[in-house]
Amino acid sequence: MIRLVITNARIVTPEGSGALRGEAMGRISVIENGAVAADGEGRIVYAGPTAELPAQLLSEAETTVDAGGRVLLPGFVDSHTHLIFGGYRPDEFQWRLSGDTYMSIMERGGGIQSTVNATRTESARELADKAQWFLDRMSQMGVTTVEAKTGYGLDTATELKMLDAISMLAEKPGQRVGIVPTFLPAHAVPKEYKGRTAEYVDLMIREMLPAAKGKARFADIFTEKNVFEIEDSRRYLQAAKELGFDLKLHADEIVQLGGAELAAETGAVSADHLLHVSDQGIADMAEKGVVATLLPLTAFALREPYAPARKFIEAGCAVALATDLNPGSCFSGSIPLTIALACIYMHMSIEETITAITLNGAAAVGLAESIGSLEPGKQADMVLLEFDNYRMLPYYVGMNCVRSVYRGGRLVSDNRIR
Amino acid sequence: MIRLVITNARIVTPEGSGALRGEAMGRISVIENGAVAADGEGRIVYAGPTAELPAQLLSEAETTVDAGGRVLLPGFVDSHTHLIFGGYRPDEFQWRLSGDTYMSIMERGGGIQSTVNATRTESARELADKAQWFLDRMSQMGVTTVEAKTGYGLDTATELKMLDAISMLAEKPGQRVGIVPTFLPAHAVPKEYKGRTAEYVDLMIREMLPAAKGKARFADIFTEKNVFEIEDSRRYLQAAKELGFDLKLHADEIVQLGGAELAAETGAVSADHLLHVSDQGIADMAEKGVVATLLPLTAFALREPYAPARKFIEAGCAVALATDLNPGSCFSGSIPLTIALACIYMHMSIEETITAITLNGAAAVGLAESIGSLEPGKQADMVLLEFDNYRMLPYYVGMNCVRSVYRGGRLVSDNRIR
Repeated sequence: MIRLVITNARIVTPEGSGALRGEAMGRISVIENGAVAADGEGRIVYAGPTAELPAQLLSEAETTVDAGGRVLLPGFVDSHTHLIFGGYRPDEFQWRLSGDTYMSIMERGGGIQSTVNATRTESARELADKAQWFLDRMSQMGVTTVEAKTGYGLDTATELKMLDAISMLAEKPGQRVGIVPTFLPAHAVPKEYKGRTAEYVDLMIREMLPAAKGKARFADIFTEKNVFEIEDSRRYLQAAKELGFDLKLHADEIVQLGGAELAAETGAVSADHLLHVSDQGIADMAEKGVVATLLPLTAFALREPYAPARKFIEAGCAVALATDLNPGSCFSGSIPLTIALACIYMHMSIEETITAITLNGAAAVGLAESIGSLEPGKQADMVLLEFDNYRMLPYYVGMNCVRSVYRGGRLVSDNRIR
Repeated sequence: MIRLVITNARIVTPEGSGALRGEAMGRISVIENGAVAADGEGRIVYAGPTAELPAQLLSEAETTVDAGGRVLLPGFVDSHTHLIFGGYRPDEFQWRLSGDTYMSIMERGGGIQSTVNATRTESARELADKAQWFLDRMSQMGVTTVEAKTGYGLDTATELKMLDAISMLAEKPGQRVGIVPTFLPAHAVPKEYKGRTAEYVDLMIREMLPAAKGKARFADIFTEKNVFEIEDSRRYLQAAKELGFDLKLHADEIVQLGGAELAAETGAVSADHLLHVSDQGIADMAEKGVVATLLPLTAFALREPYAPARKFIEAGCAVALATDLNPGSCFSGSIPLTIALACIYMHMSIEETITAITLNGAAAVGLAESIGSLEPGKQADMVLLEFDNYRMLPYYVGMNCVRSVYRGGRLVSDNRIR
């Protein structure tokens, strides 16, 4: 059975089953007047020139779409989000713009603790329903896979409840977006353990990580001065690794602490943020093949400098781009703005940017063998643009030019206006 | 006849029939559990507490909407756009990011002349159809009135053709967005008049402005070093004024030339861009009540510094915000990103920002008596947000949180996802 055939598309895709590193990120394949066919399981069985499409695929297709020459890309992979959270913090955002310090915001009841309080009181169903609202909007922007972290529970029961919410979303029939769960009890030291960080690390190792085993692909930690420093982070990551988790780190976001080096040392799949990474950290990540996941929306929202994307690329690293959607530092899931910031402010080429939000995003969530490019054998997750030129993506600044989105060969979002 | 009643809304609106200046921009009226009623001509006949809504209005209403406590704002007014244009320039955008100079881009066939060439070859119908695509998307972001400039013809026939396209759009039945036409033959010196700027100014005064009389409300000019300098601009503006046009200027965008001062001297309704305005220019604009229309998307796309919004506000000026949608320097109509830039990078409060894209935008297009706020007698152009807190507007960074849009009491955009 053939579920879908798209013809007459300009297919624009990176190629491969792993992250593209360094200058290889800029090598994008363009197939003029191309066609893609997806089988009954949503897998790509043909991606190439329309002229060479086997006639049988076309005749057996349940659905055929003439792309009218428009650009067809792999679905976008948002490989770093805090999708599940209780409450909102718009007033705190305003306080920060007015010059309130982080400490003052905490004293006024803001900061991560306010999200933790709200998350602890909401049910898994409520958390999932709220997250679905975001997933629907992410899908409209072309996202077909999203990584979703826990981290607003900071106690065993709530962290597991967040995993339940992620699981509800992942198993929802007709879900528009694939979901990769990441366990992040090490997002902050909970107020119950204030001044006793090592004891909280002990708790995570003894109780929380074992309880989450098998329910999340990744374990993640906020490695930062005065939060989880290097030695605590190393303990946590080693324990997680022994339990079978793949590893991620929030690294070198606020100060240069050596998070990138630790990511390389522990064999992490990705290190994320990296605004203040050291040259040694970049070199270590390049050597060990750690994906550098850069989150420019957060820097934009906080008026921080952008991570040194060019240094990573020139060092031979794989760069991924993600949104960091969260209710505090960066309440935004804007793929168009991420692309604009990467091209205008981080000096990435549009080809590198496309690789960073498709194949390298897939690699950052450990799925580069099954998603992230339009090649036979991969899942038919695809984005059709309104235009025939992929350079419209940064040029149409901050605006969505996605026309329709397919996941597993099924239409999941259609942005056409009647 | 009552066309529409919305109840149970948090009404958030500036008040008045003219621009709000200086600190008055921050005075936003909030009506909790408010209601708005629109009559058969789409005019507001009630805006106040739901509890005090006359029962007759509710019983006579063709349509009633329970806003569920969500924020209801005046429709957004995008008071500076180059909505009508032929072609696109995505490749040039890429060249500029790669470091190409303006001169080099011109030599490679880019720059405004490439848009002029494309605009001259397209029919008014083609130009209008293309612009409709943008209008539909602007409407989704809450825009109910847009100013649309000519300026890519630079000859009499094409400039009039652009006015025809604007007229087709304005008269389209069920049009989602109201349109204010601005005549801008003085957008650049056409190649046919290279080195003979004064002769082109003569042509505009003798032939073009008279031909456009009655077809556009505003006349506008790009007052800039090596384009139309002060004396040429003064001649053009005085001639336009004598013909009955209201005046606008692109002023002090690239260098400090005295455009703001000239705007005050000639009694312009607005001066726009103003990145390099002088203190004297700000003082002159404040004294004469010239609206300062700031266009942060353009600065963002070009990596330029933002216009000094706070200086304008502190000097007692009225600030409006607009997108500058155009195919060259700023191919973006993003209202969410405009709001984010104003609040995060121009240090405007969210209340000032709301005034700037509603009532002050209306003043910048000469329509503050009929649109721009939710008050009896004004047109029922309204934006319903997804949320009950207007601070979500900047907090949801670069993302659209508009749920539905009404123009003249009729639903014109509905962003809910099924």
